[in-house]
Amino acid sequence: MPATTEPAVTGAPAVVLLSGGLDSATCAAMAVAEGFALHALSFRYGQRHTAELDAAARVCAAVGAARHVVLDIDLRTFGGSALTDDSIAVPKDRDAGSMGAGIPLTYVPARNTVFLAFATAFAEVLGSRDVFIGVNALDYSGYPDCRPEFVASFEATANLGTRAGVEGRRLRVHAPLIDLAKGEIVRLGTELGVDYAMTVSCYEADAAGRACGRCDACVLRRKGFADAGMADPTRYQPGAD
Amino acid sequence: MPATTEPAVTGAPAVVLLSGGLDSATCAAMAVAEGFALHALSFRYGQRHTAELDAAARVCAAVGAARHVVLDIDLRTFGGSALTDDSIAVPKDRDAGSMGAGIPLTYVPARNTVFLAFATAFAEVLGSRDVFIGVNALDYSGYPDCRPEFVASFEATANLGTRAGVEGRRLRVHAPLIDLAKGEIVRLGTELGVDYAMTVSCYEADAAGRACGRCDACVLRRKGFADAGMADPTRYQPGAD
Repeated sequence: MPATTEPAVTGAPAVVLLSGGLDSATCAAMAVAEGFALHALSFRYGQRHTAELDAAARVCAAVGAARHVVLDIDLRTFGGSALTDDSIAVPKDRDAGSMGAGIPLTYVPARNTVFLAFATAFAEVLGSRDVFIGVNALDYSGYPDCRPEFVASFEATANLGTRAGVEGRRLRVHAPLIDLAKGEIVRLGTELGVDYAMTVSCYEADAAGRACGRCDACVLRRKGFADAGMADPTRYQPGAD
Repeated sequence: MPATTEPAVTGAPAVVLLSGGLDSATCAAMAVAEGFALHALSFRYGQRHTAELDAAARVCAAVGAARHVVLDIDLRTFGGSALTDDSIAVPKDRDAGSMGAGIPLTYVPARNTVFLAFATAFAEVLGSRDVFIGVNALDYSGYPDCRPEFVASFEATANLGTRAGVEGRRLRVHAPLIDLAKGEIVRLGTELGVDYAMTVSCYEADAAGRACGRCDACVLRRKGFADAGMADPTRYQPGAD
């Protein structure tokens, strides 16, 4: 029987990749609702601002995480993205409906491969068989490493490259948001008690965590609250809302 | 036609994972011999000593690398290996013939998944389609992430998770040593002009880069020179040779 059909063990540790944005906060709440003990993993990877890391810490406190690890990895060494290279501007005012048609300048080369590799290492050391990632392939901006085929392939690779996988303690990579529209994610998270006011999705949030309202992440997030028919609790920079 | 059968372009950039040990030095020399411009990638990941990074720098100078990047990633945050957790002792005096029967305490959880993920990111930013890793599944100590099935699976994952892969510029993960015995690796590297005296394989080398002679890496390395019928140029700690 494939490991992906096994029931989750209540209280078992799960590693949850937590950026501090809307999707990962929802994903964390889902893992907790499934009975997992949350071991959150965030990265200071050279992103334009770290207000999202403050948001991740707030989410951890709110959901009662067992542990929150923030790793330093300098993806600015390589650059190649509007998020890790100041010479590349973050695109603004794009239409949500057409975002998936191409890969935008905010794509960070191999970012989710790097993040999942660390999550795999963390899970193996914890004795955890469950990694959660809040990727979403429906209302998304066209990142290749947010697609279900990528997630499935990574899971296979992780099980071939670890002691746990080789010895039959298969790792599952959960991507519970992958087929959901942003509005569904917002409704689901709200039912689980997520306070989205504490999350930061914006690529260019200011030091106080206030959103620009115009980058892809902001456009998709606004769409989520609109589609869910809910008030948007996001704190915007002056003039942005 | 699968990308793995395409000829290498002379002078094209290749990312080579370079630990500074015997295998990765040989792998680097092979990449250069194939006409690639070498972009070496090493990690300060919390290993017990960094004499191997000095060795990696010497190898880069010797083969004429275009660039040598040393990334800091703290795998000690997770621990779980004799190489990244001082409370776990490095095994000594094991027999080379039986090493592959189990996964040893020096296995670092998901290490090659993490290293290859960064190599993929680096390659994508460089516009390189070639990553080299000096893993070896024949005379090896039983690491799951040194096996051909792992390398092939990682290559597939990398191509699903990157802009380059999605747009048809497929990445190839080369593991040219994977089927070679240690003696063959030593003979091949010697033919290519590798000076193994500048490499450090030992898990517990001293600050001067001198080897213990007793860990798995030393035992396998000794076997390589013996099998090749060559003098062992390794500098050992007093009493170790």
